[in-house]
Amino acid sequence: MSEPTTVAAGVSTADKDQALVNKTMENAHSAFQLYRRIPAKDRALFLETIGKEMDKIREELVAVAGKETHLPAARLNGEINRTIGQANLFAALIREGSWIEAAIDTEDPGRTPPKPDTRKMLIPVGPVVVFGASNFPFAFSTAGGDTVSALAAGSTVVVKGHSAHAQTSELVFGAIQKAIEATGMPPMTVQHLLGSGRTVGIALVVHPYTTAVGFTGSFSGGKALLEAAQRREQPIPVHAEMSSINPVVLFPDTLEKNAAALAKTYAGSITLGMGQFCTNPGVLLGVKSPALNNFLSLLATEIAAIEPAKMLHKGICEAYTEGLNTMLGHQGLTVVGEAARTAGDMEARPLVASVPASVFLKNPQLSEEVFGPFSLCVVCDDKQQLASTLKNFKGQLTTTIMGTPEDVRANMDIIELQQQFAGRVILNNVPTGVEVNASMVHGGPWPATTDGRFTSVGTSAIQRWVRPVCFQNFMDEMLPAELKNANPLGIWRVVNNNFTRDKIG
Amino acid sequence: MSEPTTVAAGVSTADKDQALVNKTMENAHSAFQLYRRIPAKDRALFLETIGKEMDKIREELVAVAGKETHLPAARLNGEINRTIGQANLFAALIREGSWIEAAIDTEDPGRTPPKPDTRKMLIPVGPVVVFGASNFPFAFSTAGGDTVSALAAGSTVVVKGHSAHAQTSELVFGAIQKAIEATGMPPMTVQHLLGSGRTVGIALVVHPYTTAVGFTGSFSGGKALLEAAQRREQPIPVHAEMSSINPVVLFPDTLEKNAAALAKTYAGSITLGMGQFCTNPGVLLGVKSPALNNFLSLLATEIAAIEPAKMLHKGICEAYTEGLNTMLGHQGLTVVGEAARTAGDMEARPLVASVPASVFLKNPQLSEEVFGPFSLCVVCDDKQQLASTLKNFKGQLTTTIMGTPEDVRANMDIIELQQQFAGRVILNNVPTGVEVNASMVHGGPWPATTDGRFTSVGTSAIQRWVRPVCFQNFMDEMLPAELKNANPLGIWRVVNNNFTRDKIG
Repeated sequence: MSEPTTVAAGVSTADKDQALVNKTMENAHSAFQLYRRIPAKDRALFLETIGKEMDKIREELVAVAGKETHLPAARLNGEINRTIGQANLFAALIREGSWIEAAIDTEDPGRTPPKPDTRKMLIPVGPVVVFGASNFPFAFSTAGGDTVSALAAGSTVVVKGHSAHAQTSELVFGAIQKAIEATGMPPMTVQHLLGSGRTVGIALVVHPYTTAVGFTGSFSGGKALLEAAQRREQPIPVHAEMSSINPVVLFPDTLEKNAAALAKTYAGSITLGMGQFCTNPGVLLGVKSPALNNFLSLLATEIAAIEPAKMLHKGICEAYTEGLNTMLGHQGLTVVGEAARTAGDMEARPLVASVPASVFLKNPQLSEEVFGPFSLCVVCDDKQQLASTLKNFKGQLTTTIMGTPEDVRANMDIIELQQQFAGRVILNNVPTGVEVNASMVHGGPWPATTDGRFTSVGTSAIQRWVRPVCFQNFMDEMLPAELKNANPLGIWRVVNNNFTRDKIG
Repeated sequence: MSEPTTVAAGVSTADKDQALVNKTMENAHSAFQLYRRIPAKDRALFLETIGKEMDKIREELVAVAGKETHLPAARLNGEINRTIGQANLFAALIREGSWIEAAIDTEDPGRTPPKPDTRKMLIPVGPVVVFGASNFPFAFSTAGGDTVSALAAGSTVVVKGHSAHAQTSELVFGAIQKAIEATGMPPMTVQHLLGSGRTVGIALVVHPYTTAVGFTGSFSGGKALLEAAQRREQPIPVHAEMSSINPVVLFPDTLEKNAAALAKTYAGSITLGMGQFCTNPGVLLGVKSPALNNFLSLLATEIAAIEPAKMLHKGICEAYTEGLNTMLGHQGLTVVGEAARTAGDMEARPLVASVPASVFLKNPQLSEEVFGPFSLCVVCDDKQQLASTLKNFKGQLTTTIMGTPEDVRANMDIIELQQQFAGRVILNNVPTGVEVNASMVHGGPWPATTDGRFTSVGTSAIQRWVRPVCFQNFMDEMLPAELKNANPLGIWRVVNNNFTRDKIG
């Protein structure tokens, strides 16, 4: 986005940045007054058109993103598909319409005191600031999940593009602009800023017209935005998806029976996309046994065969190397296996280490995320120590159970513990790979996210950008379509405590 | 609650308080591990039994609360009814069961990559700390809305009783204890603390085992708890309902036609319970006209006839007197009318003042809440100034439209503005009086509450104490009843994007 012409020459960069942020948020606020009144079916068409416009420039998107992120074309194409799929999913959600949680209690004039008619639905909060994620140049960036869920809700969006894929971000924003024009949305419904580091980002978060924030990235980045939002005169919610090591518990029976398949599967999951996923399995847990040793040696063989590859950008690669060195500097930690080939420029070398649970429990640093193709196997003396270790985990996006039916039946107490710290509990799948649907939870207690009561993936992600409002004693003609007696949109509503699509009266 | 015996004689009060808080939260945490597994139908019976036990000691409750709060017996009896009604409402909600928002997407092994089965529901977050409210000794205190909504969700509760009605709080806690025994709940499912000022309160909020907080009270009190919660290593949500002046817009046609009825109605609402309601109409807005002047003079007559009465406690009475004096000290403010009789000891004297909108807009202090029987009429020059004034309001619990159908049709732009800052928008009712049902919103943007996306009254209040969890690829036998294929609880679920009560397969 070009700078507004009202900024005089000779002013400082900080002043220019602030003027740009002010102008952008004023635009977002004004556009919101128009956009929030646009019927859901028209917003749905807008979202679908964003997808179509992205598809039209797919080749260019893949080429430019490939250069900027070093991600292979197949992955980028898959991610574009997911991004278009997300836009279509939210379009379908709002076209159907029941997501607004309409609840109606009709009047009872005969009660003492007379009972008024009250009707509730969800409405958009206002302009939302979305930060592009470095590891998802499409699905969690400019037209990604945060953006389309906010647009679906009826909020306008200001995207702060990620500097690691600025050109890709500009291209995607171009597709959004075409969709805005084609479907007649207010021109400033989505705006796009690229800026230097955190200054512009913080200025966006603290602007009085900003009503909510979406972020996917590091713990320190998310925490900085949250703290800025809390310092405001009117605090606002920050939905940051930050840090998770996604503990995987390997149970004895499956280790006995399926060690080779487990090793192959987890070598793949740990190194998928060079480990640059929030759901990367950063910790494997098991009770010590010959079967566990056998699994680890098979895993070492699998990892040795993995080719190091370039990471997303220099900063991430340096952080991985540094994180790995810190990790390996801990006494009691043993390297299980690593990629046979050493890492070249900007490449990450996959590595798996192991540590006794007693050491893991004493060193909180060992449960910090190392973003990249690394996993730590925590070897427990017995089931009791496994339980203690699980009780000690902070909030996580996911946790996984690898076990046979016999393992499961013998360990429901362990599985119960896993349910208490994670947003998603997985049986015999890998945590990498997140379905985008109504039942997905990509969230979890702090520090996985800033608010474990929400998800950033799936249709429920829309709940981050809305608030309920109750209309009391309104005439039918004043009510939004969702709450009118005739139920013209045919949505599901709770009417006098019953779920129904019927009209009233 | 008596102090734990582990505290040695001779330790400081601060150390004793901390030891008490530690012990209490450890109990709440342990009890949670049991309570969260108790089936909803048994939790429902527990909630209903709390109501029954309260009803058994109703006479004593009314007598003691009357002494402690100066509220009349009729009001206290009504509030006990509401409190019992709330417990029963949440019992009905969890017995029916659909509130947990079950969503299921079944597997598709034929997809590339294979699509796993994912199933989502809401689970309780953990121990909740509830602060009793001074102005609702029953409905928002020990067994009030925050407590029963948290218990319904499956969370354990620690109540910090309000010192202004400590004995009432102890009595209600006794009723809860009887219900715990009668229904076989874990003994520490609800605990009760009374403590000196904010020390114990803050210690409860920052304890690592506390997962969420409910509060109804002053802006400064709510903000202090929120800030304490944000300073934690793991921040937690604080749901504080704090400050609201509930703007009422009086439209021209109704002022012409219904001035006498309006004056009578609003004199009643402003002074109901000596103005000690969060929904008290603290601001009336209108465009200057002879009809508005006529209304104000009728209102003055009505207010003059109101008897001053004792406020809840000394602190509130002093704060009212001080707030009123500060208010009346502003240049440009005129007294419209006040109660004929001067206020006696601990009594509040009802008063209505007026101010030109131009003055109101320039003095942010004039839109601060004066908790008590006071209202300020803001007189606007024209509709445009009315719109400017409305745009300037911070978040509110409610806003009200007093208008004929003609007023409404001519002022939909004004009504749209009202919807943007409030949790509840009311037509031709008074804001005092809050229905407890599925469609109620008792919430609103900051500073009305700490998070406008939630309500503290009505069944949706349960959403404050839960988070979603997704089970991926689970065997049917591992799933909670709510998510099993057979749908044994018969709840509404979203299965492959369709609302249904059908079983799967």
